[in-house]
Amino acid sequence: MEPVNEIAREDLQRLDRDDPLAGFRAAFALPPGVIYLDGNSLGAMPWAAGQLARQVVEKEWAKGLVTSWNEAGWFGLPVRLGGKIAGLIGAEPDEVIVTDSTGIDLYKALAVALQHRPERRVIVMEGSNFPTDNYVVQGLVGQLGDGYEIRFAEAAELGAAIDRDVAAVCLTHVHYKSGRILDMAAITKAAHEYGAMAVWDLCHSAGAMPVDLNACHADFAVGCTYKYLNGGPGSPGFIFVAGRHLDKYQQPLTGWWGHAEPFAFERDYRPAPGIRQLLSGTQPVLSLAVAEAGIDIMCRADMRAVRQKSMHMTDLLIELVENRCVGFGLELASPRDAASRGSQVSFHHESGLPVMQALISRGVIGDYRAPGNMRFGVTPLYLRYTDIWDAVEILWNVLETGVWREPEFSSRGPVT
Amino acid sequence: MEPVNEIAREDLQRLDRDDPLAGFRAAFALPPGVIYLDGNSLGAMPWAAGQLARQVVEKEWAKGLVTSWNEAGWFGLPVRLGGKIAGLIGAEPDEVIVTDSTGIDLYKALAVALQHRPERRVIVMEGSNFPTDNYVVQGLVGQLGDGYEIRFAEAAELGAAIDRDVAAVCLTHVHYKSGRILDMAAITKAAHEYGAMAVWDLCHSAGAMPVDLNACHADFAVGCTYKYLNGGPGSPGFIFVAGRHLDKYQQPLTGWWGHAEPFAFERDYRPAPGIRQLLSGTQPVLSLAVAEAGIDIMCRADMRAVRQKSMHMTDLLIELVENRCVGFGLELASPRDAASRGSQVSFHHESGLPVMQALISRGVIGDYRAPGNMRFGVTPLYLRYTDIWDAVEILWNVLETGVWREPEFSSRGPVT
Repeated sequence: MEPVNEIAREDLQRLDRDDPLAGFRAAFALPPGVIYLDGNSLGAMPWAAGQLARQVVEKEWAKGLVTSWNEAGWFGLPVRLGGKIAGLIGAEPDEVIVTDSTGIDLYKALAVALQHRPERRVIVMEGSNFPTDNYVVQGLVGQLGDGYEIRFAEAAELGAAIDRDVAAVCLTHVHYKSGRILDMAAITKAAHEYGAMAVWDLCHSAGAMPVDLNACHADFAVGCTYKYLNGGPGSPGFIFVAGRHLDKYQQPLTGWWGHAEPFAFERDYRPAPGIRQLLSGTQPVLSLAVAEAGIDIMCRADMRAVRQKSMHMTDLLIELVENRCVGFGLELASPRDAASRGSQVSFHHESGLPVMQALISRGVIGDYRAPGNMRFGVTPLYLRYTDIWDAVEILWNVLETGVWREPEFSSRGPVT
Repeated sequence: MEPVNEIAREDLQRLDRDDPLAGFRAAFALPPGVIYLDGNSLGAMPWAAGQLARQVVEKEWAKGLVTSWNEAGWFGLPVRLGGKIAGLIGAEPDEVIVTDSTGIDLYKALAVALQHRPERRVIVMEGSNFPTDNYVVQGLVGQLGDGYEIRFAEAAELGAAIDRDVAAVCLTHVHYKSGRILDMAAITKAAHEYGAMAVWDLCHSAGAMPVDLNACHADFAVGCTYKYLNGGPGSPGFIFVAGRHLDKYQQPLTGWWGHAEPFAFERDYRPAPGIRQLLSGTQPVLSLAVAEAGIDIMCRADMRAVRQKSMHMTDLLIELVENRCVGFGLELASPRDAASRGSQVSFHHESGLPVMQALISRGVIGDYRAPGNMRFGVTPLYLRYTDIWDAVEILWNVLETGVWREPEFSSRGPVT
């Protein structure tokens, strides 16, 4: 990047005009006056999602009623959507399924991973990870008893933490706060050298950058569909199980959708072959069906172009903030090197929460992660380079005027 | 009931005119030409659900974006909907929460129940129950190891099956095939006499009849919202935990929504107080939010009137079928006594599947549960007495003409 004093808004307009991804913006409903830098928490609504919601509710449910389970393909949604997401994360279509919440999915994936190493008792995790991953594994470990334990290690300590006691490393590819990318290939290789399984959480990478699970020889993965995949609020998570691990062990949350013959109504559980065994009970069709709109859009995008624009935009954001907002107590809390950074940038500010609330009140929607972390997600499919410029101007204004000190901005709770 | 030769369609029209629940029918979208006798598998769409879906997608998601977690109350949906369902099942508002699938919910409820009786190893269940309940418990038992086992017993054998080895009885209140009601008060009492916990599945009773969990001293319960509560396809399940058991043990699927302070982002899990501990991960907002429409309608209905009409209608259905369709191989597979029967009637027919498919092709939608079980659900909020009469006429026609023998009706899969 050029130094900021040489960046003019007109330069960014030129970048927007030449942007090969520019056409995707029209696929999304974006409220006027809003610069949405929180697609890493809840992606914007694809217009097609609105149409799908109407179709599922007003046609498939209202008119098709129960026959839509077959005729509208509701029953097949987890497998069909999984097959589509597979193409975005370097998996085979029959290695991925969309179901339940990401947390429940992680429970299933890790429970299976541990069965592959029954004599080992240690799970390596980052303590600074998005806490629900820790909570899920703490729940599983507490339930298993029998000496199971979590060995917490931060990124730099992971090498030393992996040894022959380790059953699985369970890590998030892109850190939820800092956006720091872990080297999936290298860590998976290290885990395998010690005979451990590698379980990856792709919540902040699926749809944000190229992911190649099979090239990295990853064993299991989970992720969510409501961030960069634009699936809608709380839309279901996904599970990846490497083909070589399918059909060997059974995940413990066994339900009828994961039965070999769900409609045989047999008394005893028999696992479905392949990835379908990862299913449990009846799925929330509306949330699941509507998620397909965002996934389909992402499947049409060139993920390398997405990554290139993402890196360019996060570089730009850092450079503009550091030049324009100097002296206001902002400190970069993300890797400076774009290659080590996901599609988000965090700045620490002592009063990050009211500053973010003031920003939101001015239409710049990022989010806040305690303590002090202002997080801006960059979603190349619907953001323009000029949006970054405008957002930084508004940030500057909020800091320069000190408006964030007004009581209204410290009285509201954090956004998710 | 009068003998059938004295029932005329005009008599039923009079019943419809005098029906105190008749006004509820207008709240539902019912396709013309369809008599929907499968509300016990997927309830019809309330018009308000269509409006809610548009609001959540086109306003709260598209325009409110991530701020809707707070401002549209998404985060509070599980507790808010739970409080409403509580009133339908004889629970306190803070004893019920709506989340995840019924199967996952049963896993959580039973895992907590077993912790209340740590020295016991036997779970009593009906082998003929809707199998996913068995599958869920088989998964949990397999995972716990340590001598845990399921003792299968059918209704008549339950008394003998409950002894001092039993940690929990885990039963479905209304049988999914036959509609037979188990005596919740008596069985719970018997369980308690032996020191066992009583866990009830209300899938086929919540919204179909008065349920009084606390009067029965039930310990735990789960249920679904997509049948008689008309919540939409696969809408989330609910969990009841009796107030006396809250805050004593932790369910094992721990996630951030069940943390004492989800936005503190602490490394270690601390359970939320009360029913909120039953939550795991981020919920499918669209499915959850839309479910409120059906729940709200049910909350406005007088459940005693619902039950009275339901019994009257199922009596009528049996009487009409047995008189009109005599000699065609139909056999009642539900209790003859309305007081022992839920809001559904099943008939066994050797070729039940093609007969049901032929019925569906003529607009009478029931469902099929192998082997041979034709199941008709009666939903008093939107069915008329004349619908029952018309449905039986069509059934008679299907049997009389033998149209069900045509290949098209044996080539289609079962509906759920």
